[in-house]
Amino acid sequence: MLGRKLVERLALDGALAGEPLSALSLADAVEPVPPDAAFPVESVAADIAARGAAADLLASRPDVVFHLAAVVSGEAEADMDKGYRVNIDGMRLLLDAARAHAGAGYRPRLVFTSSIAVFGAPLPDVIGDDECPAPLTSYGTEKAVCELLLADYSRRGFVDGIALRLPTVCVRPGAPNRAASGVFSNIIREPLSGRHAVLPVADDVRHWFASPRASVGFLVHAAGVSTTGLGARRALTMPGVSATVAEEIDALRKVAPGAERLIVREPDEAVATIVAGWPEAFDTQRANALGFTAEQDFDEIVRVFIEDELGGRLAGGPG
Amino acid sequence: MLGRKLVERLALDGALAGEPLSALSLADAVEPVPPDAAFPVESVAADIAARGAAADLLASRPDVVFHLAAVVSGEAEADMDKGYRVNIDGMRLLLDAARAHAGAGYRPRLVFTSSIAVFGAPLPDVIGDDECPAPLTSYGTEKAVCELLLADYSRRGFVDGIALRLPTVCVRPGAPNRAASGVFSNIIREPLSGRHAVLPVADDVRHWFASPRASVGFLVHAAGVSTTGLGARRALTMPGVSATVAEEIDALRKVAPGAERLIVREPDEAVATIVAGWPEAFDTQRANALGFTAEQDFDEIVRVFIEDELGGRLAGGPG
Repeated sequence: MLGRKLVERLALDGALAGEPLSALSLADAVEPVPPDAAFPVESVAADIAARGAAADLLASRPDVVFHLAAVVSGEAEADMDKGYRVNIDGMRLLLDAARAHAGAGYRPRLVFTSSIAVFGAPLPDVIGDDECPAPLTSYGTEKAVCELLLADYSRRGFVDGIALRLPTVCVRPGAPNRAASGVFSNIIREPLSGRHAVLPVADDVRHWFASPRASVGFLVHAAGVSTTGLGARRALTMPGVSATVAEEIDALRKVAPGAERLIVREPDEAVATIVAGWPEAFDTQRANALGFTAEQDFDEIVRVFIEDELGGRLAGGPG
Repeated sequence: MLGRKLVERLALDGALAGEPLSALSLADAVEPVPPDAAFPVESVAADIAARGAAADLLASRPDVVFHLAAVVSGEAEADMDKGYRVNIDGMRLLLDAARAHAGAGYRPRLVFTSSIAVFGAPLPDVIGDDECPAPLTSYGTEKAVCELLLADYSRRGFVDGIALRLPTVCVRPGAPNRAASGVFSNIIREPLSGRHAVLPVADDVRHWFASPRASVGFLVHAAGVSTTGLGARRALTMPGVSATVAEEIDALRKVAPGAERLIVREPDEAVATIVAGWPEAFDTQRANALGFTAEQDFDEIVRVFIEDELGGRLAGGPG
């Protein structure tokens, strides 16, 4: 989802990090649909963890490489081998593919999407930039390992890496899902389209969010930002909005009074337990200082969803 | 060195974690010399990162596994592929070998030697248990990655892991070496045997030490300690002695007045730069609470060296 939106943004901008884009190569497990663009776009299906795949992807020595999430949280927990293979081995093969060109002076900006899943309870109410990764899932472990690899390969000069710990992306477009993190999107997206949404957690659950638009903005900004001040610490927690479920529902009510009645409370102990270990808020001074920005409040996150996904108007509303 | 001393200790104790030792399997890149012991000792040469090697080592399902450092710091920096292969891939193969027996209820205590090399500058004067790993070497990166893997495999119940961040082991027996961390041992060991030692760093350089005896003690204690309170945070910084080079020299002078004149100051910018990024002192509350103990001061470290390596008497002294 984020990859597709990033590609749309790049096609629209026609530029990145202050330079015009001359070409774009897309790779995913399933061949991505190339966007309409004023520059050549190549698109391939590739298994990043298959021998030679990463080397092929970097054969043309792109100046900027975006490496987005591969095996997602739930799947990485259910299929440990697959998660480790794609998320860790894939990263190492990509880093080694860059390193293979080091003799030619190649040192790409490598923007990697890490996650706040690197943090696990017990956590302070507001998590600072010095908090240690202590993941409670294999997905979080894999992301934390990749942060370390990225830092080591950057220190050695093989890549100029930056890892972005993304907030939970909200409101996600598409179909509702029962993944714990999907809940926060479901209760906005579904009612705004006149459909019911299940709420399995309590109203006072607090979490950390950024819109898809802001998340794409992080990636684009990271392609051009100076890494000089980062030193060996190449992972940055991205800014976001700390909001409770109740604040989400308030934001929904403001734009669509009555829509909140489509939210069906079905408490689920299992989901509640998972979510209880999640971070609630961050103090992202390092990222702020580098100019990364997100929404100011959840109202803005809802507004962005309506603009970007609903064409700026609500179904059934006056438009 | 530490492996050999651990084996000697186990042979002497004949017990571990409150249980009599029934058998011991040793594995190293070069076949280790088995100790005299009252129980069967098997010894093999093995490449931990070779396919099948880790599985062979765990075929007999030992209750306790000690996984000590493999490729050391200098070599891991000089030969990146070798360091990653042995130190990271070797660990993963070992963990997966344990996991392969999980269906049979196997869950060994896995004691892993991590290192304070997981920490890199900028650092506070006294480093607490919540300091984040931010390594400045590939060796430190590999150790930090292994800590994460150990935690994830422990969380999933495949091993009951504990990672010990060892202080710089001092006084190391054997020949002097020019490795930066060897300096701190050289200036004690060599003069105590009537030989000159080169000192390439300033007298006010401060670092974190434990004797080989204390380090073996950490490993043995870790085999039996309760991991219940560790949660997902399976890495513990071990206690030690924070001492300056000047304090080392004072300790030397006390036991062998005049020996300090055998220390030859030859300032070396390169070594000084490396050492400047090293930790100086730790507050090891978590390890202390679990009963891990080291020496109280550098005088005691010198005394332990004389007892364990010089038979309790100084060369040329009255004995």
